[in-house]
Amino acid sequence: MDRNNVNDRDIEEMAPASSLTYATIDYDREKRLGVNEVIFGLGKSADQISGILQDMIDHGLGRIAVTRIDEAKADLVRKQFPDAEYLSIPEMLIYDEDKMKLKDPAKKADSFGLVSVVTAGTSDLKVAEESACMSEFLHHEVLRVYDVGVAGIHRLLSRIEEIRKADVVIVVAGMEGALASVVGGLVSKPVIAVPTSIGYGASFQGLSPLLSMLNSCASGVGVVNIDNGFGAAMLANRILGLLKEKMS
Amino acid sequence: MDRNNVNDRDIEEMAPASSLTYATIDYDREKRLGVNEVIFGLGKSADQISGILQDMIDHGLGRIAVTRIDEAKADLVRKQFPDAEYLSIPEMLIYDEDKMKLKDPAKKADSFGLVSVVTAGTSDLKVAEESACMSEFLHHEVLRVYDVGVAGIHRLLSRIEEIRKADVVIVVAGMEGALASVVGGLVSKPVIAVPTSIGYGASFQGLSPLLSMLNSCASGVGVVNIDNGFGAAMLANRILGLLKEKMS
Amino acid sequence: MDRNNVNDRDIEEMAPASSLTYATIDYDREKRLGVNEVIFGLGKSADQISGILQDMIDHGLGRIAVTRIDEAKADLVRKQFPDAEYLSIPEMLIYDEDKMKLKDPAKKADSFGLVSVVTAGTSDLKVAEESACMSEFLHHEVLRVYDVGVAGIHRLLSRIEEIRKADVVIVVAGMEGALASVVGGLVSKPVIAVPTSIGYGASFQGLSPLLSMLNSCASGVGVVNIDNGFGAAMLANRILGLLKEKMS
Amino acid sequence: MDRNNVNDRDIEEMAPASSLTYATIDYDREKRLGVNEVIFGLGKSADQISGILQDMIDHGLGRIAVTRIDEAKADLVRKQFPDAEYLSIPEMLIYDEDKMKLKDPAKKADSFGLVSVVTAGTSDLKVAEESACMSEFLHHEVLRVYDVGVAGIHRLLSRIEEIRKADVVIVVAGMEGALASVVGGLVSKPVIAVPTSIGYGASFQGLSPLLSMLNSCASGVGVVNIDNGFGAAMLANRILGLLKEKMS
Amino acid sequence: MDRNNVNDRDIEEMAPASSLTYATIDYDREKRLGVNEVIFGLGKSADQISGILQDMIDHGLGRIAVTRIDEAKADLVRKQFPDAEYLSIPEMLIYDEDKMKLKDPAKKADSFGLVSVVTAGTSDLKVAEESACMSEFLHHEVLRVYDVGVAGIHRLLSRIEEIRKADVVIVVAGMEGALASVVGGLVSKPVIAVPTSIGYGASFQGLSPLLSMLNSCASGVGVVNIDNGFGAAMLANRILGLLKEKMS
Amino acid sequence: MDRNNVNDRDIEEMAPASSLTYATIDYDREKRLGVNEVIFGLGKSADQISGILQDMIDHGLGRIAVTRIDEAKADLVRKQFPDAEYLSIPEMLIYDEDKMKLKDPAKKADSFGLVSVVTAGTSDLKVAEESACMSEFLHHEVLRVYDVGVAGIHRLLSRIEEIRKADVVIVVAGMEGALASVVGGLVSKPVIAVPTSIGYGASFQGLSPLLSMLNSCASGVGVVNIDNGFGAAMLANRILGLLKEKMS
Amino acid sequence: MDRNNVNDRDIEEMAPASSLTYATIDYDREKRLGVNEVIFGLGKSADQISGILQDMIDHGLGRIAVTRIDEAKADLVRKQFPDAEYLSIPEMLIYDEDKMKLKDPAKKADSFGLVSVVTAGTSDLKVAEESACMSEFLHHEVLRVYDVGVAGIHRLLSRIEEIRKADVVIVVAGMEGALASVVGGLVSKPVIAVPTSIGYGASFQGLSPLLSMLNSCASGVGVVNIDNGFGAAMLANRILGLLKEKMS
Amino acid sequence: MDRNNVNDRDIEEMAPASSLTYATIDYDREKRLGVNEVIFGLGKSADQISGILQDMIDHGLGRIAVTRIDEAKADLVRKQFPDAEYLSIPEMLIYDEDKMKLKDPAKKADSFGLVSVVTAGTSDLKVAEESACMSEFLHHEVLRVYDVGVAGIHRLLSRIEEIRKADVVIVVAGMEGALASVVGGLVSKPVIAVPTSIGYGASFQGLSPLLSMLNSCASGVGVVNIDNGFGAAMLANRILGLLKEKMS
Repeated sequence: MDRNNVNDRDIEEMAPASSLTYATIDYDREKRLGVNEVIFGLGKSADQISGILQDMIDHGLGRIAVTRIDEAKADLVRKQFPDAEYLSIPEMLIYDEDKMKLKDPAKKADSFGLVSVVTAGTSDLKVAEESACMSEFLHHEVLRVYDVGVAGIHRLLSRIEEIRKADVVIVVAGMEGALASVVGGLVSKPVIAVPTSIGYGASFQGLSPLLSMLNSCASGVGVVNIDNGFGAAMLANRILGLLKEKMS
Repeated sequence: MDRNNVNDRDIEEMAPASSLTYATIDYDREKRLGVNEVIFGLGKSADQISGILQDMIDHGLGRIAVTRIDEAKADLVRKQFPDAEYLSIPEMLIYDEDKMKLKDPAKKADSFGLVSVVTAGTSDLKVAEESACMSEFLHHEVLRVYDVGVAGIHRLLSRIEEIRKADVVIVVAGMEGALASVVGGLVSKPVIAVPTSIGYGASFQGLSPLLSMLNSCASGVGVVNIDNGFGAAMLANRILGLLKEKMS
Repeated sequence: MDRNNVNDRDIEEMAPASSLTYATIDYDREKRLGVNEVIFGLGKSADQISGILQDMIDHGLGRIAVTRIDEAKADLVRKQFPDAEYLSIPEMLIYDEDKMKLKDPAKKADSFGLVSVVTAGTSDLKVAEESACMSEFLHHEVLRVYDVGVAGIHRLLSRIEEIRKADVVIVVAGMEGALASVVGGLVSKPVIAVPTSIGYGASFQGLSPLLSMLNSCASGVGVVNIDNGFGAAMLANRILGLLKEKMS
Repeated sequence: MDRNNVNDRDIEEMAPASSLTYATIDYDREKRLGVNEVIFGLGKSADQISGILQDMIDHGLGRIAVTRIDEAKADLVRKQFPDAEYLSIPEMLIYDEDKMKLKDPAKKADSFGLVSVVTAGTSDLKVAEESACMSEFLHHEVLRVYDVGVAGIHRLLSRIEEIRKADVVIVVAGMEGALASVVGGLVSKPVIAVPTSIGYGASFQGLSPLLSMLNSCASGVGVVNIDNGFGAAMLANRILGLLKEKMS
Repeated sequence: MDRNNVNDRDIEEMAPASSLTYATIDYDREKRLGVNEVIFGLGKSADQISGILQDMIDHGLGRIAVTRIDEAKADLVRKQFPDAEYLSIPEMLIYDEDKMKLKDPAKKADSFGLVSVVTAGTSDLKVAEESACMSEFLHHEVLRVYDVGVAGIHRLLSRIEEIRKADVVIVVAGMEGALASVVGGLVSKPVIAVPTSIGYGASFQGLSPLLSMLNSCASGVGVVNIDNGFGAAMLANRILGLLKEKMS
Repeated sequence: MDRNNVNDRDIEEMAPASSLTYATIDYDREKRLGVNEVIFGLGKSADQISGILQDMIDHGLGRIAVTRIDEAKADLVRKQFPDAEYLSIPEMLIYDEDKMKLKDPAKKADSFGLVSVVTAGTSDLKVAEESACMSEFLHHEVLRVYDVGVAGIHRLLSRIEEIRKADVVIVVAGMEGALASVVGGLVSKPVIAVPTSIGYGASFQGLSPLLSMLNSCASGVGVVNIDNGFGAAMLANRILGLLKEKMS
Repeated sequence: MDRNNVNDRDIEEMAPASSLTYATIDYDREKRLGVNEVIFGLGKSADQISGILQDMIDHGLGRIAVTRIDEAKADLVRKQFPDAEYLSIPEMLIYDEDKMKLKDPAKKADSFGLVSVVTAGTSDLKVAEESACMSEFLHHEVLRVYDVGVAGIHRLLSRIEEIRKADVVIVVAGMEGALASVVGGLVSKPVIAVPTSIGYGASFQGLSPLLSMLNSCASGVGVVNIDNGFGAAMLANRILGLLKEKMS
Repeated sequence: MDRNNVNDRDIEEMAPASSLTYATIDYDREKRLGVNEVIFGLGKSADQISGILQDMIDHGLGRIAVTRIDEAKADLVRKQFPDAEYLSIPEMLIYDEDKMKLKDPAKKADSFGLVSVVTAGTSDLKVAEESACMSEFLHHEVLRVYDVGVAGIHRLLSRIEEIRKADVVIVVAGMEGALASVVGGLVSKPVIAVPTSIGYGASFQGLSPLLSMLNSCASGVGVVNIDNGFGAAMLANRILGLLKEKMS
């Protein structure tokens, strides 16, 4: 099939074909960055996702995550890959050839670092779980501390010792995003802030917490894109990868 | 149930379970701030709302408001709490164990302060009613003065004496939000301005009245978030709480 | 002098003349709003300010504040009104015929309410002092709690009992403006938030703390314009005026 | 001189030369639009302005206005055109060959329409005077009603009958720009709104009144650019030109 | 019915009742502004619209327009007012007691002014028709010149003489909105510019043509809100009303 | 049919009529610009599109493209023009009287230039195909290089020699849009950058890649509107048209 | 000198030293892109510019342009390179070892393409001259057509035949930027649009013409950054380089 | 001295006094966060900075950094602290009681981690040096790789092995900020991105690279505020602190 023939029939028909015209997989990424390419599901059809999955499997990759894939699309993909596991809160699909379960105790024993995911409110759950589940997929242990926003700061203070034990702290918050600054001032570990688009009015789809976190008065807070729980987990993984490399 | 197991099954199944993994209720809030935690319904599932409601009831709270809950979600919650009352215009759900009606005359006798809610147009009704109903929930009397926008200023002027008798004035307006400045210049009482997202084009979802109100040429106007009728009622309640404390 | 002749000679020559062409003083404001018109100095020439001052004095007003007047302009105005006192931090000029000093102990005895002004950082001082000095000009007592931003939250917590004794709390913060939410969650009194333009980059001249404060997760926080310490004091004064009226 | 040689020496030297390389004067504009081209001074050097002035004079135009020209630049231009009159508040320069004074009583008798210029505050004076003086330059009578912002609405109401007599009303306001809506609701004549950049913080250099005016709840208000007093006068002139044409 | 009872049952039930709680009709508007209050349908329920219509009819108004009312809502309203005429392109509903047809030839004879509505593209039709139909409702004659955008400027030039005969020109354009400047430079009559939200990407829902029109290099162009065809017609009507008053 | 009767019945009925009231076709465009008018389908009804198509055919144009037309609308149009070909990925409809197939080999032999379309990710496919198919419609050859974003820069480098052979390079990218700068630094040919709205959060619907591309550190990159694959193809065509003209 | 010692003494002292710590010159650029690296003067000190110049000369480059360098800085650089020519309008510095004059007639004979630079107003001159002079530096012939904005469209039309003869047309415009669309609709050649920051108010430092140009209704217009006359010349050069390559 | 007396005399006189009214030093920060409070110089007077410095010294802190302090202010501070060292490029002042030089070789031996600071251009030097010098102040070794922007990607590729040896990589870039994505795709270590405000036009004071970096297609890049070289160093320090803690 000619690479130049993309447009004269629907991509849907074409996608199952082996040589991908619409994607150039980066098979080399694990060697270069320590992590396989993760498939970003948004804006891709189920057939495109299946095609990329199959292509990665064909190239010997056995443990693949798809993010931002809604349930309907995941169901279509799972027709071809029935053993893939769907996590509905973070809308992730996990393909794992060894059928090892995501939170299998044995695996946890192997886990290297501890990531704490802290949220301001219940509404931030979806984004937080993307961070948490992605971290677990990457073999890290996760401590979830949810709904401890600064309007009732004792809720955070009562759990701060727990949080301090983590190697990396991911703070997920919408609205004014103040939690990132407060945590950043209480914890010496790397803090990664994820603004969420939850809110309304002058939140402007997450602009408010994004600006807050960038202007954090606690210095040394790294910010990722709005709702980018995945990116936060990847930065945590870079930090823990460094730790692993240095300690081994 | 382990706090770390949030992600391996759907939150829907999990929520009815007693120990909440997705929320950290601030039971202490009434003591600290004079008002129970109010449940913000947006971005929460019906099961999460029900779970939080049950948890608050279990901790002895008997009078609870849920805001920003649409009718479909409210119907689901009311399957578990059939006596909760749904207010369709402000999209609030009121749970009240003593079954005391919201606007019961006996209760009104107990009311401490008078809040006037003034709107520029009919389209601001929904937001205004969130302010009004929340104030009533907090035992304040409410004077509604609706659709008196500045394009026909005599409508406002003809009712200004009534408005002046209120202890706090909440002004709800979309479009250019000019009403807040005009009221602020006519009334000596605290004025709380609520911009609304009603409008189109260069209203930019409420940005126009928000900026107007922040730039009010009448000084001493406090602004809350776009469409945040609830927040305005809460600020009014802080003011009336101060009054009550000082006068008792 | 003809009202229509403004443009054919420089306003500088014209201003000292008695009948003002460029201003329409609202002599009735104290009766209507409880406070004299305050002169906003920004964008007015020294001669215009002097002209308005003289006009107000001629109409029997003996206690007048000018805000946002820089030192050079104030020096020019004080040539005509040598007894006016200049406050350099908040850039205010106070004219007081009875020569009563701003913080005269006797006056303080008369003060009605207690306003706490809380700042996140030292850089917010100028705006905070506009709130504080304006409150003192309005005969309120002021408690200053400066530089207690959330990056070191113990600084705030150690002074929270003091702050809780105030009738109204004004929170002044730049950067991410998180302090307003934290204070709002710890204090039941009316909280007025003033975003400041101090900061750089993604602060966007105060947009970041403005949005934060509007999205405060602590409900019942009223926001005023960026750097508007004056407006915060005026809203505090409306609240304290209500208190005074009810208690007298 | 070759049109293509602009860049090899400074425009300053070149400008006095007769054939303009940097400007293409629209001599035909009066015939087409009823008004000569007006020289916009901002971003032009004194020599460029003088060059264009001379070129227009050479083509028989005897009555020319320059807008947005500061005093220093005007002084330089007046070395070549000593009889040109400088208006310092609106920063305009008027060249008039017949030496007819701008507000000469005889001329006023000729004036066709009455333009009312209404401002919210003293700080809007500069922009208002650009509207007023430009209207006078165009032979209209001007009624100035200044500093009648909505924070003291009686100031406006007390003069509304006067304003209603005008043919066109120009409303100049900064801050929240509410005056345009209020006037638009009280007057049936065409209303032209000019937002000003006076203000601070969330005024965002005039964005706040601009959006307000565009969202005016009084329908039929035409808005021009921020600080564009000139443009408002030109729109008024188009309206009065139509009137003149129809009535003659 | 008590004005304070709005919230305890659905507005839908209440609206048909005679005394309106949710609206304060400005019956005086025709006398003051020359035009009846026009009902803005967006954000109002069919019952609210019907209620306001009935209330206006009960107060003797016999010719009423409703704007921004979609077909479904209009159908509901027409159950109560079967003779009201629905115009589907501009989404307007016209109630006219004398059953006089909108474009009845006899009426046209009575029309006073000629409004030209010029659009850049076919996609601007809906907004343009709001201007055109509203102008016809106000008894003006309308000349439609559609799809003459500047990418093919001869299309505009070939019709410019026709356009010049109009008393007022309304220019409706999306994308870059350049048409307003070009028309403004070719026509001496008042030009009203209406930016439309048609477009995509960097049009930012009409921000691009809005800014263009405000910055028009042809001076004397008045701008109304994005998609506000109604407002443009109302400004045209103010101008033509002035003309009528002066000529009668 | 009278041009002024647009509004009294639905445009749907009217469109099939021959004389178009809602569109002014620019038949002269091919002569002037070298390309027929292309029909922009967004915001036009199927009947309007069919009407314009028929009108163009009636005027002797035999090869017409419609862009931004979704499948449902295309199906309606194809009822009238069954031979028109629909390309589902770029959502284009091609009408070609000679029934010559878009990618007919004979035609390719005629093709003049080579356009390379390079994308950062699979999600940019739709926009890229609009560029590619439009270029093919204009008889250019197209080299597709998809999913070579800078996160795995070797993917781009491995194909750079191929890309360098193209006459014009169109770079399509969302997210941070970095690909345009990198390609611009590696290739000496004209580079046209198309930002896409694919992404989320701080992408702000394509604002992020738009600003990136405008600020490209590789100089000489021309940017078109967000998602405007069509515009990029048209700019490429202008360049190739110049080449053809000079070389013939 | 150690690359790591940048910070312990002022860059000013260090810059004249031969090995540059603060810059990594891309000597390979001419081969790769057909043009030497051009030094962007903004944000660089005179010493840094001199250092880079010297380094380039030392590597055998004999013809170097510096852009965005103000006169004061240029004077400092010319102390070391007295033969460099300063162009004051576009603020460029040209270093040319063969002392060949920029517009030497002999050179013009060598010029390959013709670039037309068209401006809307006199105020756009500076940006236009950056395009023009840079094009001349790159050995292209330049046709300057200045001040032909659309408010007097006959000025443009009268020169359109001249413009059509150019190979590439650069349109420079501020305010509403309409000129790009109009030219794009009249000329079949590649059109490059340069928005300028000239203007005030809702121009928002060039945002208005930038958005206009991106939304141009004339398709195939490539846009560069605000005020980026240099970038436009570089894109023109890429196009003319392609032409040269193909024709040689 | 009374904490409430801040406003009645200038802060300048007051600052040298021992008890600070304008600042609440967080002496506990080193214990809590591993780093002393760093003094942010912007918006503080020289006297305030000196006062805070003295207060910290009095409390036993012997190694203190002041950031964002310009040379004039630093000179004033150094009158009181003549041994403090001023770094002119990053505008930092270092006070170090042991007089140990910042880059003393012995100290370097103690350094724990290696931070690579990579910049896109020479203009980013100031921000980069803030990162580099702050890292050195915190006892880390620094590898500077400057001016390797993506327009000449071979410059980066030729040094990538060096960069990969660092423990943390700080990428400093203005314009389109593409460097962060490219580095993020080539290096597995934690990448911290610092957007700079260098640029013009559509850079919008650093908004362009800020958005780019937040949307980086290379996942796991943490972003700090525009120009916040300091914050990047602090995040690097949190990561290296974790490493040190784990390895000791």
